[in-house]
Amino acid sequence: MRVVIVGAGITKFAEHWNKSFRELIVEAAVKAIESSGLKGEQIEAIYGGCMASGRLIGQEHIGALIADQLGLNPIPSTRCEAACASGGVALRTAYLAIKSGLHSIVAVGGVEKMTELSTQAVSFALGGAGDQEIELFHGATFPSLYALLARAHMHAYGTTEEQMASVAVKNHANALLNPNAQFHKEITIEDVMNSAYVAEPIKLLDCSPITDGAAALILASEDKAKELGLKGVEILASEQASDTLALSSRESLTELKATRIAAQKAYERAGIRPSDIDFAEVHDCFTIAEILAIEDLGFFKKGEGGLASEKGKTSLKGKIPINPSGGLKAKGHPVGATGVAQAVEAYMQLMGLADKRQVKNARIGLTHNVGGSGATAVVTIYKRFKG
Amino acid sequence: MRVVIVGAGITKFAEHWNKSFRELIVEAAVKAIESSGLKGEQIEAIYGGCMASGRLIGQEHIGALIADQLGLNPIPSTRCEAACASGGVALRTAYLAIKSGLHSIVAVGGVEKMTELSTQAVSFALGGAGDQEIELFHGATFPSLYALLARAHMHAYGTTEEQMASVAVKNHANALLNPNAQFHKEITIEDVMNSAYVAEPIKLLDCSPITDGAAALILASEDKAKELGLKGVEILASEQASDTLALSSRESLTELKATRIAAQKAYERAGIRPSDIDFAEVHDCFTIAEILAIEDLGFFKKGEGGLASEKGKTSLKGKIPINPSGGLKAKGHPVGATGVAQAVEAYMQLMGLADKRQVKNARIGLTHNVGGSGATAVVTIYKRFKG
Repeated sequence: MRVVIVGAGITKFAEHWNKSFRELIVEAAVKAIESSGLKGEQIEAIYGGCMASGRLIGQEHIGALIADQLGLNPIPSTRCEAACASGGVALRTAYLAIKSGLHSIVAVGGVEKMTELSTQAVSFALGGAGDQEIELFHGATFPSLYALLARAHMHAYGTTEEQMASVAVKNHANALLNPNAQFHKEITIEDVMNSAYVAEPIKLLDCSPITDGAAALILASEDKAKELGLKGVEILASEQASDTLALSSRESLTELKATRIAAQKAYERAGIRPSDIDFAEVHDCFTIAEILAIEDLGFFKKGEGGLASEKGKTSLKGKIPINPSGGLKAKGHPVGATGVAQAVEAYMQLMGLADKRQVKNARIGLTHNVGGSGATAVVTIYKRFKG
Repeated sequence: MRVVIVGAGITKFAEHWNKSFRELIVEAAVKAIESSGLKGEQIEAIYGGCMASGRLIGQEHIGALIADQLGLNPIPSTRCEAACASGGVALRTAYLAIKSGLHSIVAVGGVEKMTELSTQAVSFALGGAGDQEIELFHGATFPSLYALLARAHMHAYGTTEEQMASVAVKNHANALLNPNAQFHKEITIEDVMNSAYVAEPIKLLDCSPITDGAAALILASEDKAKELGLKGVEILASEQASDTLALSSRESLTELKATRIAAQKAYERAGIRPSDIDFAEVHDCFTIAEILAIEDLGFFKKGEGGLASEKGKTSLKGKIPINPSGGLKAKGHPVGATGVAQAVEAYMQLMGLADKRQVKNARIGLTHNVGGSGATAVVTIYKRFKG
């Protein structure tokens, strides 16, 4: 049974001082339902991605909360958590739920409200994505973990800080064209290079921000989409892989193995090659993460991601546009929402709804969502659904 | 595609001062894998239930952690969270994953380590299962929420504190026969009645304890089970329903509507009636919860659960044995593990492995797992698999 995205919605990504967690998820969900043309009561189940609501807003049981706020009781509603890959995992879980034959219309949500606490407390909560005993307990934070990955890549392949900076510059440029992005500010290589070190060689402008936001999708089985005459985007494959939580247990620090394996499996299931992908939304929580991703996803050879970025090959008009939405870096990174927001962007691009950031002739898209420093990766491949 | 439980494992439920979260989940998982006769590398995906690890041990990303600790990278590993129904939801999600046809052997885990913090801090973390804004912020704790349900039931049906006490007495008696139970202590109605009020009319001995523990299952598709000659227990149905988080939004306080709806759907899918069930593990987080459950599941008419309990109809040799394991009350309640532990008990009973607590002629069993005060319910029905 093929699975089709028939609706998508997203809030503006921002520091939403006047909107609650509940308001954000309802806004995204209502937009998704409206865009599908369905009614709420046609939805049979919900899967929601959320990373750290317990520590960020004192609320667990997010699945039930979403159904409650949408007035969709008594349908089953499940929270999936895989750190910053929570949204991608929720999407894949919903995709399997439709493939199971037990549900034919399913909503997927992703949400995080990160600005209720101090930056230090948020940083500590995000640390739960890594290995608490081996890494966090000893003082590591996420910038420091990705700094280790950056150093390894610089050492092995000569990747430079300027090349990493070029990722931030490109993503800020794309975000200027995305009304829902957190940052609408053009930046230069010099701006990035002159920003303060957070964890050398990672500087402030290499980092994705703390963001509030939500995103939602409506999925339908092929049969149901045809029966109801729904248009949309087909999920050709959605694959997930795991790796060790701690960097110290990894075989290599110059790749995220979980990305590579999830991508291999996704390409195989979709029956395509990396060169068939017209654009990708990848997990650029730090600029080095985008460089790793475009290599691990097979768009560029290992070690050539930095140079490719610097040469503009990943820009909106480059060989393969990466993060047309602005990415985590500039669209923003409400952690549990990110994987779903990436799929919303894939939907918009493939439906030709991406306005000024539209990738030309976009036929096949890919999203890539990472949890922690790579202990979870989800790779999903999409194409326009021909009903 | 039918789904079969081919292995099960559980730790002792206790205050495990000398075992970590990681050690507990590995112990349960290894036992489950060994009992199935499979090798770890035959497992294709993991679904883990865990409620509040972020607040209880500072660790999110539990799916990846489990795969990591078991050396099962790079398979996909997903955490499901639905408060105290996290385990039941993980089981249902794994069941759908097999039904999807994408996975044929899947592990399900449930785990919680609750004794790292003070009782007050744990109580606050558990509060995340309810409505943070409407209930918890204003000082409600879970005993107080269930006290409201108890009062409503007492008012409507004349249910007595002694009848509630009889649930605790029966579950402690069953737990005496379960070597993995937290409490091995016979108690009397007087003991319960003389215990201190926690939230009137709920007394200390009406409450399930704070517990550390883990449980695990191995599921296989029917085809794979036949191919490998595996024995086990078939899942006839697994249904999940949601309700409002806050009690104040409910239509009725004398039932858990989510239980009733999940049960109706499960009976329908399994093609059976409540009278076909030979035993059930139900969610007795408080004694009143068991009384509500045996009514909402259709074993007794609404309002007659208290009397049925008092009359011994739910004892090991009664009309329908309820919680032969000792239940949450006496076996213990490591919240994220509970739903999986219930399924482990169903497996043991249907395989004839329950030793002194074996229900005679057990052919069909049911488990019932609740999140919070009933905003999530999962009802699963099992019978011995005839390969």
